[in-house]
Order: sequence, then C-alpha cells, then structure tokens
Amino acid sequence: MEEGKDNFVFIGKKPVMSYVMAVATQFNRSESEVVIKARGRSISTAVDVAEISRQRFLKDVEVKNIQISTEEVPREGGSLRVSSIEITLGKI
Amino acid sequence: MEEGKDNFVFIGKKPVMSYVMAVATQFNRSESEVVIKARGRSISTAVDVAEISRQRFLKDVEVKNIQISTEEVPREGGSLRVSSIEITLGKI
Repeated sequence: MEEGKDNFVFIGKKPVMSYVMAVATQFNRSESEVVIKARGRSISTAVDVAEISRQRFLKDVEVKNIQISTEEVPREGGSLRVSSIEITLGKI
Repeated sequence: MEEGKDNFVFIGKKPVMSYVMAVATQFNRSESEVVIKARGRSISTAVDVAEISRQRFLKDVEVKNIQISTEEVPREGGSLRVSSIEITLGKI
C-alpha cells in the first residue's frame, strides 16, 4: 500500500466513526478526492466508512470508483494472499 | 435484495469456496454476467469470492462493476442500516 499519501485513509481496527472523521478532515483540507483502503476483514468497515461519509456527513461527495485486488502479505514461512479494496470518494 | 434471480449469488456464512463454485456454476449455465451480493460483515467474503473466481477458476471473467449501498433491515423495535455490495463479474 502507498503509505504516506495525504488523501488515503487506511482502515484498521479503530471504530468506524474515527475513519469517517479522517475522511471528513481530508476533504476539509481541500482534497478533491479521498481514497479509503482496506484489506481482509476490514473491507466491510471500508464500505461502512464510505456509506456513512457520503450519506450523513458529506452531502456533496459521491463514490467515484471502487477497485478490488489481491495483495501478497509477507508472513513467517511465506506469504498470504488477501483481498483488498480501494473506494475513491470525490466532490460532486 | 432481488431474491430468485438466477445470476445472483448471495454471500452468507458458508465457506468461501462454496460461493466460488456457485459463481462458476452460473457461468457454466451460460450466464454472461454473475452478480455477487453481500451485506454487513459478509462484504469481505464477497470480495474474496470475486477475486478467487476471477484469478483461479474463471480466467475469461473480469469485474464489470462494483456498487455499494445502504439497506434497511427490519429488526425488533425498528430497523438497522447495513452496508451492502454488488460485484458484477462478466465474460471478457
């Protein structure tokens, strides 16, 4: 994953609303697009974050693109293939 | 959700591979598109099913469209809003 990019929000184990706030913060910093990224079990949370952001907090934002892919994650004794998602939200 | 449609595969609590087989069966019945649908925590499994189908079992199939939405699910004393996903796979 491209760490350090300003307009990316990486979904982990925090409560959904903390990521919704992170998305809102990016848009308030005048980003025109914010990309929500997640892997494995966090993919469901990424969709929750996108839906809540779009419907309840950022009325002028829509889903611009959704991509799914498979990433190789290094593990002891090899690597693991996990699904990932990138949801791009953008100003209407 | 549109129950009863032949080319829909609804993701629940079964093992991932049983849904991959369901997707493959639809394509073998000469469907040109198969829609994988899931709600809530099953969304991650839906992405796994799409990725495994596309990469390992159905080399001539690609992701045609992905849509996310929010559905109202009736519950005792009201309703619950849950995220959902629809991943459309189609013949290349």
